[in-house]
Amino acid sequence: MSSETKILLAESELPRRWYNLVADLPSPPPPVLHPGTLQPVGPDDLAPLFPMSLIEQEVTAERYVDIPEEVLDVYRLWRPSPLYRAHRLEKALGTPAKIYYKYEGTSPAGSHKPNTAVPQAYYNAAANIRRLTTETGAGQWGTALAFACAQFGLECEVWQVRASYDQKPYRKIMIETFGGTIHPSPSTLTKAGQAVLDADPDSPGSLGIAISEAVEVAAQHSDTNYALGSVLNHVLLHQTVIGEEALLQLAKVGDTPDVIVGCTGGGSNFGGLAFPFLREKLAGRIDPVIRAVEPAACPSLTRGVYAYDFGDTAGMTPLMKMHTLGHDFVPDPIHAGGLRYHGMSPLISHVYELGLIEAVAKTQTECFEAGIRFARTEGIVPAPEPTHALAACIEEALRCRETGEPKVILTALCGHGHLDLAAYGNYLSGAMDDREFSAEDLKTANLPRV
Amino acid sequence: MSSETKILLAESELPRRWYNLVADLPSPPPPVLHPGTLQPVGPDDLAPLFPMSLIEQEVTAERYVDIPEEVLDVYRLWRPSPLYRAHRLEKALGTPAKIYYKYEGTSPAGSHKPNTAVPQAYYNAAANIRRLTTETGAGQWGTALAFACAQFGLECEVWQVRASYDQKPYRKIMIETFGGTIHPSPSTLTKAGQAVLDADPDSPGSLGIAISEAVEVAAQHSDTNYALGSVLNHVLLHQTVIGEEALLQLAKVGDTPDVIVGCTGGGSNFGGLAFPFLREKLAGRIDPVIRAVEPAACPSLTRGVYAYDFGDTAGMTPLMKMHTLGHDFVPDPIHAGGLRYHGMSPLISHVYELGLIEAVAKTQTECFEAGIRFARTEGIVPAPEPTHALAACIEEALRCRETGEPKVILTALCGHGHLDLAAYGNYLSGAMDDREFSAEDLKTANLPRV
Repeated sequence: MSSETKILLAESELPRRWYNLVADLPSPPPPVLHPGTLQPVGPDDLAPLFPMSLIEQEVTAERYVDIPEEVLDVYRLWRPSPLYRAHRLEKALGTPAKIYYKYEGTSPAGSHKPNTAVPQAYYNAAANIRRLTTETGAGQWGTALAFACAQFGLECEVWQVRASYDQKPYRKIMIETFGGTIHPSPSTLTKAGQAVLDADPDSPGSLGIAISEAVEVAAQHSDTNYALGSVLNHVLLHQTVIGEEALLQLAKVGDTPDVIVGCTGGGSNFGGLAFPFLREKLAGRIDPVIRAVEPAACPSLTRGVYAYDFGDTAGMTPLMKMHTLGHDFVPDPIHAGGLRYHGMSPLISHVYELGLIEAVAKTQTECFEAGIRFARTEGIVPAPEPTHALAACIEEALRCRETGEPKVILTALCGHGHLDLAAYGNYLSGAMDDREFSAEDLKTANLPRV
Repeated sequence: MSSETKILLAESELPRRWYNLVADLPSPPPPVLHPGTLQPVGPDDLAPLFPMSLIEQEVTAERYVDIPEEVLDVYRLWRPSPLYRAHRLEKALGTPAKIYYKYEGTSPAGSHKPNTAVPQAYYNAAANIRRLTTETGAGQWGTALAFACAQFGLECEVWQVRASYDQKPYRKIMIETFGGTIHPSPSTLTKAGQAVLDADPDSPGSLGIAISEAVEVAAQHSDTNYALGSVLNHVLLHQTVIGEEALLQLAKVGDTPDVIVGCTGGGSNFGGLAFPFLREKLAGRIDPVIRAVEPAACPSLTRGVYAYDFGDTAGMTPLMKMHTLGHDFVPDPIHAGGLRYHGMSPLISHVYELGLIEAVAKTQTECFEAGIRFARTEGIVPAPEPTHALAACIEEALRCRETGEPKVILTALCGHGHLDLAAYGNYLSGAMDDREFSAEDLKTANLPRV
C-alpha cells in the first residue's frame, strides 16, 4: 500500500481542551425551559441532579474548556484513538475516493461513551458525590459509566430496560465486571418503578421509565447524582476530543475532508466528530459537506418537527427545542438501540436549522450489508449504530466511482459490534426486515404548548 | 502519570521477519515421527494437508523468515499492536514493579490468532488452494481463519465442537460475518462425523472429532488444505512478531524485562512473546525469568510427562515429543477453552526440558479474580486465557511489594473477553468452582511405544 493504514498520535498530542461550538455559531441555541413556568431553567433547577461544574459547562459561552489532568490520565488508556485509512474497503469498492474512519471501539466500553462518562464521574467525585445513577437501554452507556465510576471511587447504579436486561445478559455482566450495580427496570426500588409494576407486573420497561427511576433516586439523596450519556451540551462538549484528534490526524497526512458522515441517535458521536470541523468550516478554512445519518425507523432530523418537547417519554424533564418525533413515539425495535431516541440533541438540531449540516435516513438492511462489507475488508465488526454512517460512506464512495472524483470522506466508527452479534445473525439468516417511518407515526399531538 | 501509558510503534517499524528459535538452541527438538513407521516424517507425508512453503517453515533451521509484503499489508490493519504500561494496576497493587502488557485484542478476531491465520491463508492462496478447513473449539481460531481467508479469496470451512456451537452462537455469527462456513461437529458431511453420529446421534462432539472431520475433507480434495492454529513450529514462528515488537517497544522506554509471563495452551501465544526474548537471553544480552502459566485443570508442563504422543484425541496425527497428559485425557470444562489441550507445543516442551523457561499452574477462580482486578483498573476485560498470565503477573508484583524490588514484568494480554462474558457472569455469581488435576487423571497408559 502506498500510505499508512493507521494514523496515530502520540499521547503528548492528546487534546487538552474540549471545544464548545456555541461560541462560534451565528446565534445561540434556544434556551431550555422549565416545564411548569416555561421560563429558562437556571443552575438551581439542575443542581439536584448535576454538579455545578457540569451545569456551568452546559451553559458556557467559552470557546474552550480545559480537560482536567485526572481525566487525561484515564483517557490515555485508549486515547488518542486511531484514525484508519480504509485502503481495503476502497479497493473492494473500486472507488477513487479516500475513506478515513476514526475508531472509538478500543475504549473500555467499546464505544465513544467513555469520553464523557470519565469527566462526568470525575466532576461528581470532585463535588464529593458518592454515587451516580443512570439508565441504559442496550447497555453501552451503563458500561461506560460503570468503568468511569471505578476510576474515581464512585458507586454506579444502572437501571436497564427489562427487555434488554433479559435479552442481553452480556452487557449486564460487563457492567458488573466493571463494578457497577444493575437493576432491571421497572424495579421495586423506586416509586416510579413500583407504580408501573402495580399496573403491569410483567412490564418490559422503557427508556422513559428507566430514566424516571434513576432520576428519582438521584433527587432523593444528596450524595447521589444522575448522569446522562447523550443529548446535552456538556456531553457533546466532552465528545469533541474525537474531532480534535481527527483534525490533527488528517493534517499529518495532508488531507482535508470533502464529506464528513456520522450516525445520529442522541447526537453525541456525530457532534463529537463534526463540531471541530464545523469550527474550521465557519472560519472559512475548509468547506466539507457534513451529513448526519439516522435510521429510517427513527428519523428525527429528516422527518420530525423542530419544537419544544420533553427529553423523556414520561414528560418529566425540562423542555428542549429539538427535532422530535414526539416524546410519545416508541421507535420500532431496530437493532441499533443507540439510535432509538425520539428527539435529537438541541445543539445539533439548532445547527441543522442553521443549514450547517445535512441529514439522510437509512434502512437497517442497507446498514447491515454495509457492516458486513466493512468487516470482511477492514477486519472490524461495527456496532449497528455506525453501520448507518458506513452505508452513507459507501454510497458516497460509489458515487465517486461514477464521477471519478477523488473525494476525501471521513466517518466515525463509534464502536465495535462484539456484543451485537445477535443482530448480525438475524441479518445473515435473512430474518431482518425494514420498517420505515410513516407520516402516521408522528406523535406531535402531545407536544407541550410553549 | 510520569510516563506514557501506550508505547506505540509506527507502521514502518513493523518487523519484516519472523524469528525461528530453533536456529539458536543448543540442540534441535526431537523429530516428528510417522505413527506407522516410527520414522521421522518427511515433506511428502504432510503435502496432502499443507502447502510446501509452510512445510518448509515447519522444518527450517534458518534464523529468520521474511514476512511477505501481502501479509504485512493485512498485518497493518492492527499491527504493530500496542504495548501498555499498567500504571493504574500498579497503583492499585501498591507495587514498585513496572508492569507492561502487550495487547493482541485489537486484531480482527480479538486475539493473537490472526498473526498466523493471515500467512497461512496467504501461502495456501499462493499455492492455488481454493479452500481451507479447520476445527475450532471456543471459536477464536475459526474466526481468525475466516477473516484471513476473506483477505485472499479463499473459502473457509470450520467444524466447531457441537457443544460450543450450541452454547456460543456469537462466535458462529462472527465467523459467518467474516464469510466463513461453519458446521457443528460431528456432522454428516464426513465419514468420521457420520460414524460418530451412527454410534451416538446426540454426541456433543470433541476437538479430536472436529480435527478428524476437517482433515478428512482436506485430504480428499486436491484444492483443499487444512490449517492448524497452534502447537506446530510454523505457527509459533508467525507469532514471534509479537515478541519482536515488544522488544522494540521496551527499548523505546529503556526497560529490559526481569520477568516474562505468558499463558500456555498449545503454546503459540507464549512462544510468540517469549522466543525473541529467549534469543536475547541465549546471546547473553538480557537475563529474564521466563514463566509459562497453565490452568491447574490442564497442567501439561507442570504435571504431564515428556513423551511421544498423538496431537489429537483420536490418534490420527503424527507423533510429537511433548509434555502431555495423554491424548485420552479430557480436560475439565474450564472456561479458558483455548488452554484445554492435552499436550504442549513440541518446541516449547523442548525449551522447557532445556531449562530455559519455568512453568506454574493457576486455578481458574484466582485467574478470574485477576481478570476483574485488571478490567477495573486498566479498562480491558481480558479473555479467560490471559487471566492466567495476569494472575501470575499480579503474584509477582505483590512479591515485589514485599521485597521492594522494582522489577520489570512483561506479559501478553493475548485477547479480549467480549465473547467470554458468560464465564465472568459465572464467576461473579459465585457459581464457579475449581477442579485441580490429580495424579489419577494422568492418561499415559495409551502412550504409543516409540
